[in-house]
Formats: sequence, C-alpha cells, structure tokens
Amino acid sequence: MEDIVSLCKRRGFVYQNSELYNGNSGFYDFGPLGSELKSNIKSQFRTQFIHSRSDIVSLDTAIISSPKVWESSGHVGGFSDPMSDCRESKKRFRSDQLFWGNVEDETGKVVCVVCVHEDDTEVMEKEAKKMAKRIIKNEKLEVSGKTKVDISTFKDLTVATEEDIKTIPSPESLKPTLTMPKDFNLMFSTHIGASSTSSAYLRPETAQGIFINFKNVLSSTRMKVPFGIAQVGKAFRNEITPRNFVFRSREFEQCEVEYFIPPGDCWKEYHQEWLDFSKNFLLSLGVRSDLMDWDVHSGDGLAHYARACTDVTFKFPFGVSELMGIAARGDYDLKAHESGSGKSLEYHDVERNEKYIPNVIEPSLGVDRVFLAIMCSAYAEDEVGGEKRNFLKFDPKVAPVKASILPLLKNKPELVEVAEDLYKQLKVRWNVDFDVSGAIGRRYRRADEIGTPFCITIDFDTIEKEGKTVTVRFRDSCEQVRMPIDEVMGFLGKEIDGY
Amino acid sequence: MEDIVSLCKRRGFVYQNSELYNGNSGFYDFGPLGSELKSNIKSQFRTQFIHSRSDIVSLDTAIISSPKVWESSGHVGGFSDPMSDCRESKKRFRSDQLFWGNVEDETGKVVCVVCVHEDDTEVMEKEAKKMAKRIIKNEKLEVSGKTKVDISTFKDLTVATEEDIKTIPSPESLKPTLTMPKDFNLMFSTHIGASSTSSAYLRPETAQGIFINFKNVLSSTRMKVPFGIAQVGKAFRNEITPRNFVFRSREFEQCEVEYFIPPGDCWKEYHQEWLDFSKNFLLSLGVRSDLMDWDVHSGDGLAHYARACTDVTFKFPFGVSELMGIAARGDYDLKAHESGSGKSLEYHDVERNEKYIPNVIEPSLGVDRVFLAIMCSAYAEDEVGGEKRNFLKFDPKVAPVKASILPLLKNKPELVEVAEDLYKQLKVRWNVDFDVSGAIGRRYRRADEIGTPFCITIDFDTIEKEGKTVTVRFRDSCEQVRMPIDEVMGFLGKEIDGY
Repeated sequence: MEDIVSLCKRRGFVYQNSELYNGNSGFYDFGPLGSELKSNIKSQFRTQFIHSRSDIVSLDTAIISSPKVWESSGHVGGFSDPMSDCRESKKRFRSDQLFWGNVEDETGKVVCVVCVHEDDTEVMEKEAKKMAKRIIKNEKLEVSGKTKVDISTFKDLTVATEEDIKTIPSPESLKPTLTMPKDFNLMFSTHIGASSTSSAYLRPETAQGIFINFKNVLSSTRMKVPFGIAQVGKAFRNEITPRNFVFRSREFEQCEVEYFIPPGDCWKEYHQEWLDFSKNFLLSLGVRSDLMDWDVHSGDGLAHYARACTDVTFKFPFGVSELMGIAARGDYDLKAHESGSGKSLEYHDVERNEKYIPNVIEPSLGVDRVFLAIMCSAYAEDEVGGEKRNFLKFDPKVAPVKASILPLLKNKPELVEVAEDLYKQLKVRWNVDFDVSGAIGRRYRRADEIGTPFCITIDFDTIEKEGKTVTVRFRDSCEQVRMPIDEVMGFLGKEIDGY
Repeated sequence: MEDIVSLCKRRGFVYQNSELYNGNSGFYDFGPLGSELKSNIKSQFRTQFIHSRSDIVSLDTAIISSPKVWESSGHVGGFSDPMSDCRESKKRFRSDQLFWGNVEDETGKVVCVVCVHEDDTEVMEKEAKKMAKRIIKNEKLEVSGKTKVDISTFKDLTVATEEDIKTIPSPESLKPTLTMPKDFNLMFSTHIGASSTSSAYLRPETAQGIFINFKNVLSSTRMKVPFGIAQVGKAFRNEITPRNFVFRSREFEQCEVEYFIPPGDCWKEYHQEWLDFSKNFLLSLGVRSDLMDWDVHSGDGLAHYARACTDVTFKFPFGVSELMGIAARGDYDLKAHESGSGKSLEYHDVERNEKYIPNVIEPSLGVDRVFLAIMCSAYAEDEVGGEKRNFLKFDPKVAPVKASILPLLKNKPELVEVAEDLYKQLKVRWNVDFDVSGAIGRRYRRADEIGTPFCITIDFDTIEKEGKTVTVRFRDSCEQVRMPIDEVMGFLGKEIDGY
C-alpha cells in the first residue's frame, strides 16, 4: 500500500489536500494523471450505464438541498457512527473500530483487559499483546508463564455495558478512561443565506437527489417503469477516522443509479441483472477479477429498509473491502419522501393499469475506491532486457495518457515535424503525450511508468521509405509492429474506444 | 427569460432544487437533458483547453481544504458583500443592490427619498415612482404638480452616511428602518471532524486548489513555464440574493485555468492570446457572437491584485452580464500562499537561468452561465409547413441528444430491427434516442424541440432497395439527404466530433 501511495504522489496521481499547509486529514487532490484517470472512470460510467442503455437517464443535482430532504430520508435522525472519547488523551474513536477482550496467563487466569483500534486480525493480535505487556508492566501484574490473547473472542466497544466500560483501558491512556459510545452524525452541516439558525447539509450520498426528482423526470421525459436515473457527483461524510488513503475519505465521488421497477417478486431478477452488469463494468475498466469477490449481506448486515444488498469487494493491500454495492431497497425511499413532503409519488403504470410506488434497485459505486482498485490492479513489475521494470497495466479505456508520440531523434526537424502532425491529429480526440527528451528506451520506460498503453515512434523509415510506416509499441508485451502513419488514428480508435 | 425557465423545467433541462419540499432558493438540479448539456460543455473544455494543448495539465482538488488556504488567499478577511437589514420586515438586502435618491415635484422641491432594489434602469424608475406614490399617500405629503424621479442621480446604499440612513426608506417598510451596510462573508462554512470549534469552508472558487498544488505539479510532471493547470468543479457562494435563474446561484460549477508565465511585460501578449482562445471556445459551443461582447475592467472595476481583467459578456434576457473572465493576476496568489505557508513557491527557470515567482493569467468561466447563454443562443422559432415551430439550435458538440433513430413504422418488425441495429451501433459513442411513437412529422418536431441535430429515418428503401440508404434530416434547415446506412456513423462522427 505504501508503494501505491508513494507512486500516486510521485507521478501526480493523488496528493494530500492542503499539503502546503501541513495537510487536511481525509481530503485528497487528484493530480494531472489522477484527474484524467478519474475523469475516464466517470466517463465510462456515463457511456456504459447511461448512453449505452435506452432505459437510463441522468441527473446532476445540487450538493446542498433543503434540510427537509435529509429529515425525510432518515439521515438527520439516523446517519451516525458511534463514538467514544478517551477522557484523558482527548482522542476520539469510532466505537465500532475499538475491540476489547481478556488476556489470560498459562493457568487460564484473566490477567487484564485490553482494547485495540484495528480490524485487521493479524495487526489486532500483535497490538493486543503489546498493550497487555505495557499494562502488566505499568500495573506490576502477576503472570504465570506466557500471556495468551484469543482475539476471536474480542467484541467491539458498541456492545460494552456501563460495567464493562469501567474495566476497558483506552488505547491511549491504558486506563479505563473511555466514554460510552455516543452517536455522532456524519453529515457536514452549514448554513444557507445570512441566517445562522437554519442548518443545511452537504449530501452524504447522491441517491436522494434522484428520489426527490422522480416526478420531475417522469413529467419531463417519456420514461416508463422499469427505468433508471443515474447521477455522478461529490458526496461528503464527516468520518471520525478517515483512513486507507482515498478508500475512506471525507469528500468522495459516487456514481449511483436508482432503477425503478414494479412492486412484487420481480426485484430478484433485476437485482441479479444489475449484479452481473456491475461486475462486467468493473472488469471492463481493468479491475482484476482474481481480486474481486461478492459479499452478500443478510440478517444483521442488512440495513432495515433493504431486501438484499450484495457488495462487490476487492482485495486491497489493507484488506478485502467494498468497491460497489447493489441494493434492493424496496419502496423505502420514495415512501419516505412521500410521507415527508405530503405529496404523492405514485406511478401510474398504464400497461398494467395499476398505480403503485415503484421499488428500487440501487447500483452504487465509489469513484475513488474504483480508482484505487484500478491502481492496485495495474501496478506491475517485470524484467525487460535484464532490467527490472515498474509499470502500470491500465486498460486503454481508463489510461490517463493514451499514447506517447516519439520522434526518434530530437535534432532532426524532418522527424519532429511529422511527429508533431500526428500528435496534433490525435490530441483532438485523446490525451496524448509528445516526448523528445532522452534515448528512446528511456522514453518507453517513462511511458510505461505512467501506464501509457501505446508508444508511437517516428523514425527514418517513416519519412524515407514508401508506406510511411511508424512503429507502435505495446506497453505490456513491449512488442512492436509497423503500420502506415495514416492508420494510427483508426488503430487507436479501435483499441481505446472500440470504434 | 420566463420562456427559457419554463422550457428548462418542461423539457427536463433544469429543475428548482428540492421542489418537492417547496424549493431551496439559489440551488438548481439539472435534469436528463440539462445534465447531458452541462457534461458536454465540461467535456469540450477538457478537449479544447487541456487535451488539445500540450501546455496544460488538469487537477481535481477537494472542495473542502484547510482553512489556512482561505486565510492566505484573503477570502476569510475580504470575500464579502455589504449587507443591510430592514429592522421592521427583517428582510436582508445587498447594500450595493439598493439605490436611493430624491423625488422632486414640479417646483424642484424634494418631496421624499426613495430606495429601490434593482439595477435595471427601466425597472428602477418604475419602482421608484411607485414607491414615491405610496410614501406620499402614507405620509400625506404635499406635492406641487407631478413628481419627478431622476434615477441617474441615485446612489447605492454602500455610500450612505449615518445621517443619510436616517432618511432612506426601506423598500419593505417604507420607513427609515435600514441598517448601515455591514460585511457578510460569502463562503459557506462547516466543521471537519467531531470538533465544533475549527471552521472550514466550501471553496468559493476552484483557483486556489491550483495555486496550493503548484509545487506538487512541478515535481510530478515535466511541465515548464509557460504552462497552465486547469480544473473543473463545483464552487459555492452564500449569495444573499441569488437571482436570474442559474446565472447567480449559490452552488455552481467553474472551469478555470491558471496559466503560469515569467514576470515582466510578456503578460500582455499572453492575456490577449487567452482572450482570443476563450472567445473562440465560446463560439465553438454555439454561443451567439452577436450577443457576446468584451468588457475591459479598469481603475475602480479592477481588483487590487489584478493588472487587467477582461470579461466576455453576453446579452441575457435580463441584461448584459459576465460569462467568462480573463484576468492578469500578476504574482499575487502564489506570493500570498508563500507568505501564508512560509514555504518557497519560487520557480527555477533553467533556460533563463533565473528564479522567480511566476505571474498568472486566469481564464475562468462559469459552466452554469455558459449553459444559460447556450440555451438563450439556441432558442429559436420559425415556420415549417405553415406551422409555428419552436426548436433549439444547439451546436452538435453540445446537443444533449446527438441523433434520433426513427423506424418509419412501428408495426413493421423489419424496419424496427434495422433501426435498432443502427441505434445500438451509435449509442456506444453518443447519447442518441430511439423513437417509434407517433407520425414521423411529430417525431421530427419532438427531436427539434430538444435540439437534436439529426434525425435518421429507416424506411422501406432502406430494406428493399440496393444501397440500403436512410434519410438524414437536418434540424435547422429541415433538409433531408439519403445516405447508405453504413456511412451514418462516419458522417455523424465528422459532424459532431470532427473525426
């Protein structure tokens, strides 16, 4: 993971926000290559989820809406994380990220209680042992033989009782100075206009902007159920402990679809269709299938309003985590806004001659998470000509730079001129590079490092021989083919866009 | 203007945000067609300002950054509007939008003072007369003959003294109940993390995200001065009186470039280049040149840090207003962040063998304003076959729907099938419609109304005759040409994308 973070900064994919002012925890800035990659992901979503389908239209709604929207949706009342403070260190923790349990000695006697801030089992065990050691030393506890920690018995702090909390040490103070879990709303709040009384919120998800416009879309288009509304945009969550780089940040970007369907059992079929569609989408962007998996939520893991939710997960260097969720939300959201606004959100299904509140399937993906999964999937190392090579195996669709145009020699104007003409032709359509500095091998390597799939070299054959051929070098195989310069645009079109 | 607003809502370009909850003043949601149009504007900016040039790279920075950024930039201290309250009605006004002056009678005697909230001269005069009439009636004032109002002598409220304010009536109460102008910061504020003490702000412009990453971009790319960094994204201003539809809203989207150049007189040349480039960009999107103009700021109209600023203006139905600004900002911003952060932002110019803080040319456009200018430019009416036709003359580059595919008859599967094949082929590349319902003339009209530049009809000649031709109908001229179905993709490519 450290390699990825460092590469991201070095090559201009991602910078820590406000680094010049010593950073701003949980916020990131996408650099020249990162902003291209991110923009390509979003534009692929537009192409595949919206334009390529006849049953989806798009919306682009405001980040700040009437606070009533979030009252109806349940976010004002319920969108919160449990939080515990350490009264001594003044540090704040997410209670569901603190795990506590007993440490025993060889006789089975409980030596002490420990509490660690982690959910990765390996690190947890190590941290728990370290903490036990410090407590035993601090409090001069007696231990028969070695200590034993069985983290499988550990519980998170949200289930601790008032009695428990008196025995659970804070990871900071090593003394029982933690407060009982208390809910903390995750929405960023602000004020509209000059008033300092009325609160407004930055949206914590893009979905509600779709629900509140359901009737507007119906009356201004000719869409009929089943159909979907998609939206791409920023969302904000005031995470107490943002972490894992851009995976869990406070400001992020979402691509969401609300797909409206008739009530009844048909939701199962639609849910499966959207699972397949979503997975194919991720594969098409170059997310490695061997690192992807499904996580079917059931019982406790399911939000109260959801009928089913399946996550597409990805094996990140820090663990397996959610990349995208496909939820069957029933009619929960539209009903909530109907009751909140007092206005009917019923749909008149002419074909079925029925009025109903449509049910909803919601495919939802985090752009920053997909970004990170693509970075992890693309990160590669091999050997070329006996030398180690680091490169990024981006799918051409999402690669920040599609091709690098290389005149073989810098000081031959006849080569440079032809190369420039090709460059001008291509850059109207794609983000391409023009690189004249250094030996050709070094320039290939430079393109490989940022994941440019094609290098096109203009050499003396191009200007002297019939056929005006250039070489096209493929990043992953390092193979080269010659083709007429006039065919490059068409060739790249097929390889990058498929047309 | 009312026609445009109503069209926008009816056809799904723009809805009032949170309409379901009786609205949210100053915020708008872009509907299915509006979000496509807006996305096309932004993608044209990416193509023309970033990809087509070798001297510009892009960034995508966070909306919320460290508050220190806004302290250094001067926004915490100075980014404010003067504001006056009416103590009786509790209404709040922008002091620079209230104009006051004397009303005289035919003898030249001052009858009363009036104060109106407007800057359109025609409306102002009418409003002033109306207000005078009401005051005269209320206070039973004596008037010799007719009253006279000379609004050319009116001043805005920011120049009123404590003495003046005692005589100036509030437009609401008609009595002197206005407070003296007081500065009101336009940034939306919020809080990061669980702390309720530290304030953070939603960015009021995208530019500062670029300045604070100047060094990051230099060290992670091979850019050399002169070069530019561009960014597209949301910005927020807590306007006291948002107005003129999406022209002045509280949440909007910007496209900005900071173009870094050496110090010295060369800025004049670069400034002119960017003026020309920007105007050509707007023309290429279909903004009508006869409604566009330049507004060169000088003296008082110029911000203290700017050397020059030229606005590209547009004649909106509500008046001539700024569409885009091209400012020469000197080294003001980088110096401000250098002094705020205590870190050097000097550039080492190897060719000139010099170290300096680069100067900056800043082309900056409001996406929502360009959106509105395009709507106004496209709005058209003519007569077709003796009937009035309302249509939108969008340039194909920005048109929300590029083409509508029409099988001549709905109930002929052989026509529908061929049409569907073409539709599937095209929608991988563009947003296209498939329309089978109603007479062909009605379908043409439907496409015209939303500004679809091309209608492609599959008729019996397509399936029966050699050459497999379809008709392509042009929106503006209503002319039709026949071409082989295989050539449609290539034809549209040239017309829409230029390749």
